Amino acid sequence: MARAEPIHGKSGILIPGFHAVQEILDHASHRIEEIWISERKKSPRVREILRMAREKNIPVFFKKNDELSRHLPEMSHQGIAARTSPFTYVDLEHLQKACSHNSALILALDHITDEGNLGAIIRTAAFFAVDGMILPKDRSAGMSPAVLKRSSGAFIHLPVARVVNLGNALSVLKSRGLWIIGTCVERGTSIYTFDWDRPVVLVLGNEHKGISPSIRKLCDQLVAIPVSGHGESLNVAVAGGVILSEIVRQRKRRLA
Amino acid sequence: MARAEPIHGKSGILIPGFHAVQEILDHASHRIEEIWISERKKSPRVREILRMAREKNIPVFFKKNDELSRHLPEMSHQGIAARTSPFTYVDLEHLQKACSHNSALILALDHITDEGNLGAIIRTAAFFAVDGMILPKDRSAGMSPAVLKRSSGAFIHLPVARVVNLGNALSVLKSRGLWIIGTCVERGTSIYTFDWDRPVVLVLGNEHKGISPSIRKLCDQLVAIPVSGHGESLNVAVAGGVILSEIVRQRKRRLA
Repeated sequence: MARAEPIHGKSGILIPGFHAVQEILDHASHRIEEIWISERKKSPRVREILRMAREKNIPVFFKKNDELSRHLPEMSHQGIAARTSPFTYVDLEHLQKACSHNSALILALDHITDEGNLGAIIRTAAFFAVDGMILPKDRSAGMSPAVLKRSSGAFIHLPVARVVNLGNALSVLKSRGLWIIGTCVERGTSIYTFDWDRPVVLVLGNEHKGISPSIRKLCDQLVAIPVSGHGESLNVAVAGGVILSEIVRQRKRRLA
Repeated sequence: MARAEPIHGKSGILIPGFHAVQEILDHASHRIEEIWISERKKSPRVREILRMAREKNIPVFFKKNDELSRHLPEMSHQGIAARTSPFTYVDLEHLQKACSHNSALILALDHITDEGNLGAIIRTAAFFAVDGMILPKDRSAGMSPAVLKRSSGAFIHLPVARVVNLGNALSVLKSRGLWIIGTCVERGTSIYTFDWDRPVVLVLGNEHKGISPSIRKLCDQLVAIPVSGHGESLNVAVAGGVILSEIVRQRKRRLA
């Protein structure tokens, strides 16, 4: 299966790292065009990936470590990468259908601009079983190669819709029975006392400005993480993780 | 108070952003050598900072926006920055004395290498009232200017000790009655069922390798965030936030 030369002219995205490659191989191997492995790598993890690639008929190319580094500047690639098909957004209608259950959990990002934050949010959303995510088309980080790389392979689990007008999208979801819950840094209900046992769209705001006034008006409720120490706010990816964790904790406790 | 020319030859660190400058002015103004403001800035926030600087006798310099950007490449400075004295580490003895109460909460980082992660962890630790932090001297990100900038001013609230041998430091703290709690991605007790009502040193591991075997052996308990969706782990700063949030939530509930 391993060949000496790569296929040129492919348009896919190179996703680095053992965990990411394994994740895509396990759950969406049809999206992998080829796998690149550093010539120096001979570990059991590499052998397992070679075995799976052979089984799924995915070409593997052995590369010089330098070549991997050249294609993945400033990324910790661990000597392995998968070239996958470009990311495809879903439409809002699709997302909505996937979220018509009582414990629906959608994440809406009101103009998150930092790609590192978006990558971490995607990884967190997949970890906590978020059903889908909504991004605005303009003035927002999108599912770029850098973001997909930073998500550590988690993007394959998350349907993402990109909309022209986030307010309109939230209004549609609200009319279908979802609660629009906005996060703020002050004067919100504590995330620990708010009852998360309902279908929810959780809105996270921009890194500097928070949620915009027009989106804030649409929210059924504003929630905040109570500060017990110093500083007024958390990094948006950390805040998202803290709130999603509390939602999952409460919902599991009810089921127990 | 505002002068036309900067003082040259200063060794301090330039910390950008309104929130960070305000935070340091409020809590550690003695650490500020001077404040830089973009000439174009005339907002009420700027006026408030000018008023505080005058009151505290801190020199203010008006700069071209380009000059701020040149000194703070790739940082979102919002047209304002404070030059502060370099960061000073505390020794372990000092940290320990500050943490001799029953609800002590210390964070130990077992070789976190990414400066963005360390900055976000500092901001999160300050937010959730962590008493202090321990870093190893080698193979670890330290309190560099980039990290201080990324912590959004939160570093002024957090005593940080840097130690040659993290295992030795943890053994000392263990002998003084603190529980050493390590985080792992599998086979740990759920963070939601573990009883956090005790003095704790929470150990977060390296981004790729997690907690090293020698540190793992020292731990009184290993805990994990249960995965409800996909992916085996979270970004380390997000994981830290999720666990600190749960510690604070449990402890507050007991007090209520």
